[in-house]
Amino acid sequence: MNNLVTKSCFIITLLSLLTSYLPPTRAKTLKPDEPCKRIVLYYHDILFNGTDLANATSAKITNDSALGSHFGMMVVFDDPMTEDNRLGSGPVARAQGFYFYDRKSTYNAWFAYTLVFNSTEYKGSLNIMGADPLPEKTRDLSVVGGTGDFFMARGICTFETDEVEGDYYFRLKMDIKLYECYQKGGG
Amino acid sequence: MNNLVTKSCFIITLLSLLTSYLPPTRAKTLKPDEPCKRIVLYYHDILFNGTDLANATSAKITNDSALGSHFGMMVVFDDPMTEDNRLGSGPVARAQGFYFYDRKSTYNAWFAYTLVFNSTEYKGSLNIMGADPLPEKTRDLSVVGGTGDFFMARGICTFETDEVEGDYYFRLKMDIKLYECYQKGGG
Amino acid sequence: MNNLVTKSCFIITLLSLLTSYLPPTRAKTLKPDEPCKRIVLYYHDILFNGTDLANATSAKITNDSALGSHFGMMVVFDDPMTEDNRLGSGPVARAQGFYFYDRKSTYNAWFAYTLVFNSTEYKGSLNIMGADPLPEKTRDLSVVGGTGDFFMARGICTFETDEVEGDYYFRLKMDIKLYECYQKGGG
Repeated sequence: MNNLVTKSCFIITLLSLLTSYLPPTRAKTLKPDEPCKRIVLYYHDILFNGTDLANATSAKITNDSALGSHFGMMVVFDDPMTEDNRLGSGPVARAQGFYFYDRKSTYNAWFAYTLVFNSTEYKGSLNIMGADPLPEKTRDLSVVGGTGDFFMARGICTFETDEVEGDYYFRLKMDIKLYECYQKGGG
Repeated sequence: MNNLVTKSCFIITLLSLLTSYLPPTRAKTLKPDEPCKRIVLYYHDILFNGTDLANATSAKITNDSALGSHFGMMVVFDDPMTEDNRLGSGPVARAQGFYFYDRKSTYNAWFAYTLVFNSTEYKGSLNIMGADPLPEKTRDLSVVGGTGDFFMARGICTFETDEVEGDYYFRLKMDIKLYECYQKGGG
Repeated sequence: MNNLVTKSCFIITLLSLLTSYLPPTRAKTLKPDEPCKRIVLYYHDILFNGTDLANATSAKITNDSALGSHFGMMVVFDDPMTEDNRLGSGPVARAQGFYFYDRKSTYNAWFAYTLVFNSTEYKGSLNIMGADPLPEKTRDLSVVGGTGDFFMARGICTFETDEVEGDYYFRLKMDIKLYECYQKGGG
């Protein structure tokens, strides 16, 4: 009897060893509410309006097409990111990249950019891209990579419009949730 | 003897436990023919030709450079995606993003875009980027992230040209194969 | 006693089995100095200057905005990649994509592009995006996906400026380090 138990034990142990070398299960489980890191920041886009060069942080590089709703208008930006929604609170990161509008019937944007951190808290960057369908209250973009303190990170960046002032200023709340975080092992 | 067996069993079990905490093996195995999810859709690009505003789904935002083969021409699109290759079958998703041409000697494109799903079957998005060397029969781009039903997905999107009608319409078969799929765990 | 040992063994084995099915530990460890693959290549950008069409490999598609330091100037490229820093050594890959400048006070660029390999050594592509803050000696961008021999790869691409000749030529050392490598399993 005891012998049978030890034999079974052996077999299960071997199976267990084999299992741990198999490729990871295809449909893995991640909990959207349990990121390994979360950072909430506010993005301030101050589009150059032809006069206020000193404060502008972004510039239009292509004109609207004939399709309407600014379809085809592309903007390059180097925008400040702040911890609360007041621009005056001072940037803790920069958002560098571009967006353009891409719908005829309503405002719809598409973003690709890098969050560049160079503060006492974080040094490194997060690369983000995705659609920004403005009519929806919240919009999810992909964090597709990271460097430095965000080495190899992946996750979701959720946009929420916080304020719009004409064509010259808007503010987004960016809720950055990372689900793949890596510690740097010793070299 | 029995004692020796149980001791060995202990040691193997401990090794097995340790092994399961090690970082994953560097060169993991994935089978290109066994994606965890596969979706085949057709992309219809109807470039604004100056007159047919109603049907246009894309617009040129920069002009050809002097380098030839439309080198430097950039197009922003909000294109319908259908399940079969007939435009009239009705869109099941939108492709929102841009492409541009980037070769002197032949047509070669580069795409970055989001597939936006908002159907009964899928809600969410897939973010895709990569080169599209048109002379090749099939071209592989990277699915670099996903949201909603495609939360954190990664994979390959294979392009195949299905039809070209002058400069104003072309259709691509997009064979989307995901190799990283995640189930959303309870929050 | 022996019975106790075998029972404990059973319990530990079961725990071990359960452990191997849990999602991977959140903060995984990767060693920046131990990529699973490393490739160092030189990128040569020869911007069309209005006269030397034959040698040009890139073209400006938007003009500088009023914000200075070429802010808003976008360039599309199909640039040769060489193994040493001499352009004449012959390309082993092409870099196809775009960059633009996005700072007022200093030169700062943003890149998104594909490295297309079609040599005896490698067939496939790597997709890369990120910020390129020129004042820094080395800059890290994200390798967000790959195809062919680089199927599903991820990693870091480190830029280092190797030479700048006016506005018409610059050369970057690109140190590509992959930390996620996949072997293609049989179909």
